[in-house]
Amino acid sequence: MQTVKGIGVRASLVCCEAGAAGRGFRLVLKPSLSGIHGDTMTENGCEYRDRVLTMDTMNPNVKRVEYAVRGPIVQRAVQIERELKMGIKKPFTEVIKANIGDCHAMGQKPITFFRQVLALCSYPDLLEDSKFPEDAKSRARRILQACGGGSLGAYSTSQGIEMIRQDIARYIEQRDGGITCDPDNIYLSTGASDAIVTMLKLLVSGEGMSRTGVMISIPQYPLYSAALADLGAVQISYYLDEDNCWSLDISELRHALQEAKKHCSPRALCIINPGNPTGQVQSRQCIEDVIRFAAAEKLFLMADEVYQDNVYADGCKFHSFKKVLFEMGLEYSEKVELASFHSTSKCYMGECGFRGGYMEVVNLDPEVKVQLTKLVSVRLCPPVPGQALLDVVVNPPQPDEPSYDTFIKERTDTLATLAEKASMTQEILNQVPGIKCNPVQGAMYTFPRIHLPPKAILEAKEKGQVPDMFYCMKLLEETGICLVPGSGFGQRDGTYHFRMTILPPKEKLKIVLAKIKEFHQHFMEQYS
Amino acid sequence: MQTVKGIGVRASLVCCEAGAAGRGFRLVLKPSLSGIHGDTMTENGCEYRDRVLTMDTMNPNVKRVEYAVRGPIVQRAVQIERELKMGIKKPFTEVIKANIGDCHAMGQKPITFFRQVLALCSYPDLLEDSKFPEDAKSRARRILQACGGGSLGAYSTSQGIEMIRQDIARYIEQRDGGITCDPDNIYLSTGASDAIVTMLKLLVSGEGMSRTGVMISIPQYPLYSAALADLGAVQISYYLDEDNCWSLDISELRHALQEAKKHCSPRALCIINPGNPTGQVQSRQCIEDVIRFAAAEKLFLMADEVYQDNVYADGCKFHSFKKVLFEMGLEYSEKVELASFHSTSKCYMGECGFRGGYMEVVNLDPEVKVQLTKLVSVRLCPPVPGQALLDVVVNPPQPDEPSYDTFIKERTDTLATLAEKASMTQEILNQVPGIKCNPVQGAMYTFPRIHLPPKAILEAKEKGQVPDMFYCMKLLEETGICLVPGSGFGQRDGTYHFRMTILPPKEKLKIVLAKIKEFHQHFMEQYS
Repeated sequence: MQTVKGIGVRASLVCCEAGAAGRGFRLVLKPSLSGIHGDTMTENGCEYRDRVLTMDTMNPNVKRVEYAVRGPIVQRAVQIERELKMGIKKPFTEVIKANIGDCHAMGQKPITFFRQVLALCSYPDLLEDSKFPEDAKSRARRILQACGGGSLGAYSTSQGIEMIRQDIARYIEQRDGGITCDPDNIYLSTGASDAIVTMLKLLVSGEGMSRTGVMISIPQYPLYSAALADLGAVQISYYLDEDNCWSLDISELRHALQEAKKHCSPRALCIINPGNPTGQVQSRQCIEDVIRFAAAEKLFLMADEVYQDNVYADGCKFHSFKKVLFEMGLEYSEKVELASFHSTSKCYMGECGFRGGYMEVVNLDPEVKVQLTKLVSVRLCPPVPGQALLDVVVNPPQPDEPSYDTFIKERTDTLATLAEKASMTQEILNQVPGIKCNPVQGAMYTFPRIHLPPKAILEAKEKGQVPDMFYCMKLLEETGICLVPGSGFGQRDGTYHFRMTILPPKEKLKIVLAKIKEFHQHFMEQYS
Repeated sequence: MQTVKGIGVRASLVCCEAGAAGRGFRLVLKPSLSGIHGDTMTENGCEYRDRVLTMDTMNPNVKRVEYAVRGPIVQRAVQIERELKMGIKKPFTEVIKANIGDCHAMGQKPITFFRQVLALCSYPDLLEDSKFPEDAKSRARRILQACGGGSLGAYSTSQGIEMIRQDIARYIEQRDGGITCDPDNIYLSTGASDAIVTMLKLLVSGEGMSRTGVMISIPQYPLYSAALADLGAVQISYYLDEDNCWSLDISELRHALQEAKKHCSPRALCIINPGNPTGQVQSRQCIEDVIRFAAAEKLFLMADEVYQDNVYADGCKFHSFKKVLFEMGLEYSEKVELASFHSTSKCYMGECGFRGGYMEVVNLDPEVKVQLTKLVSVRLCPPVPGQALLDVVVNPPQPDEPSYDTFIKERTDTLATLAEKASMTQEILNQVPGIKCNPVQGAMYTFPRIHLPPKAILEAKEKGQVPDMFYCMKLLEETGICLVPGSGFGQRDGTYHFRMTILPPKEKLKIVLAKIKEFHQHFMEQYS
């Protein structure tokens, strides 16, 4: 797989990166072992063993896969937590994980109505319980009627429960000002990741010069680079413009595409809006330009819109690719192939654990659609509790229903708090000399640039670490704060960043930001 | 992909097979279209459109994927259900789906305790509710304490919640008479299918002669052939011995392996025990022989044991590959690489919709394990409600707990009913001249052989259908009973079968069997 420098550099870390188990982790730090065929470590020490499945014989594409959001720094964070439990003294008392957009883990409370419906669906005896509001009960009854045998425990159709796909279609039509949505174009999935990987899989073919190339932004969410490595596709990197709020510049798209055409067959363009890890919200104009570009260059559009409700900055508004596409007229709306993705994991619900998600496909070749339906049928169906949750997300309490006020209050409070934390994060970080971050217009992350002194970069390289990994590891060891190095998302050569979520509770977030400020100042002194 | 005749023949049905949408279905019956690049049907009729993603440009491996359990016959069954709703007259009033092991859809009731715990976990306010038994509450509290932020909505570690992996390890140790199980060797998954595909993915490498070959039984569960097609691996088919209760004959394994070595590199051997679709339960002797064979031939063993609690026949007992392996001594227990799979979908719980599953890996190269952990981290985590369900499955009510008696009664009744239906099915079918089925020793299916008259085979071929597909389609149209043709699982050339679940309620099952009997007799007269 062709990779951007930023990611390429981390190749040496692949093994280390996924050192989940203590044993595994120690082992992979012994490069001397990795070469010897089938020679492996066991509890009883090192003994020769001729295994079938070894580093030499395993799937080479899997070896190339990297996923920084759960990489070595997170593994180390888990170790440190264990060490703290064991009573080992540290300059801090707890590890704060700001590495992943895991809302509930950071204390965000679930929406009461959603959980009531899920409890009713899980244990229908509760439908007789007067403690549950009528609207929650009617939602649950409706969902159960759409389930085989009236149970969440039955398989659904592979594309997802038809009634839920109809509800999603109505929700999308409302969101997009009445532009029609065909429930038959909706595919439910195990989180958005599942649908994204499925679409990419359909798109990958050819060998050598004709191998499928897929354009992804840099910085990117590493699911994309990981999936492309796994599928043996060519990653075509286009850089977002950090100096302009991480905006997308069409000339950069054009440049990246021209370069890529020399060694692969570009087939798809992936966009994340609002941006992860960069937090920008794309203007309507930008989206139009991207659509025109995709149409002119014959690229399949993949729009990752899982943060569509997470827009905070004044003057910013979420525009769905679907809506813009259809408002650009038949020339585009009947021509451009689009898959857009949404999920229950983010926005105001933050229900990551249920792995609920869906995609809408537009202008997909009907024969390919048959193939897509066949492909998803092999995995039988997405988790039905996640489908049920998705149904209440797209079909929440209405003004005339008993749960409406509570629902609105909970949703508004959650989004307001996120907005507050977004601006607080950028303000405080921008006060630190040597740290510069763009406004967090949307999503759940800040991706500030950090200026590292040459001495630090040198020491990192001596340690065989990417400089921002070195920085983040040091931060973790000294403060207990777990961030993800920018190199895990890709960045321009010679620039360094970290991704931090804005999710910790306000008071804790203040402390985190103060600690980062203090650490950075001290780091600069130490290496100046 | 190399395929067995039985499956190969169905290639012509691939498009038709997945014709989920009415439109898609009509379209794929127009072979004239399928060739023309990018030419596709739209609501507004047929117009030329130059698409990026077409049958010509899509991933060729995906085109080769087939999955009969949800194939054309099921698509037709869904259409017929719609037609019945629309008031179209049929010789029957309802479609009975005996095509898939979907317990709750067939009326099996969930285990009360499991659903109580799931409701408590979904909506923790219920922990204050006196209507819930204390043991359900304590389980729910314990699970929530192991979840990030005490919520099912938080991501878990990618390998699965550590506490749940510990509970699973204890459960396996108990099952296997104390043989130790390391929680670090447990990986939770999105149903067993997910874990099976992940292990196969790790195993696939090489090109041409050195391409990975994987041995699977014929008849097989089509997840295996589908995954191998998707991964571009070589399917090595070994035939089960229908004349001896679908038993596994080592000489057949040896023969299939020798043949395969001429054109690929055999690396893994997949076993399904109890068998799907064939319902046999392997003897301890047979499992020992398989392990010796795998050790001698350096094959990675994959044991699909999702039906481990579904054993009905007298004298039959489930032996786990792990237990037998470890009882064969260090020579094997320290050498043979094994992955075994289990799920919440079958057995007495039948909770398919939650997509809960796990695998245990034994003797996996520690470095490969690091790669496995990295690979699963890209999908973040398995559905947490499914993980919670799995935890209560392996940690059910104990004799001193309030829910114990109800739990035991529900479990016993469910398994007893299944046993009854298993013997009833085989008895009645064996009374039909021209149908011969082996005893359903375990699992949830019968796979009877049907003798089709030459005239029927001829008419099928004229229709471009595999003879047993022709038979099952006719059965569906005339009786509303939905079965899966044997060709979807693979079978010896010139033999024909169908797979039928034993899951319909007893009274309904009697009717189904009577209808099949009547249909078959009439079919034989018609074509004799």
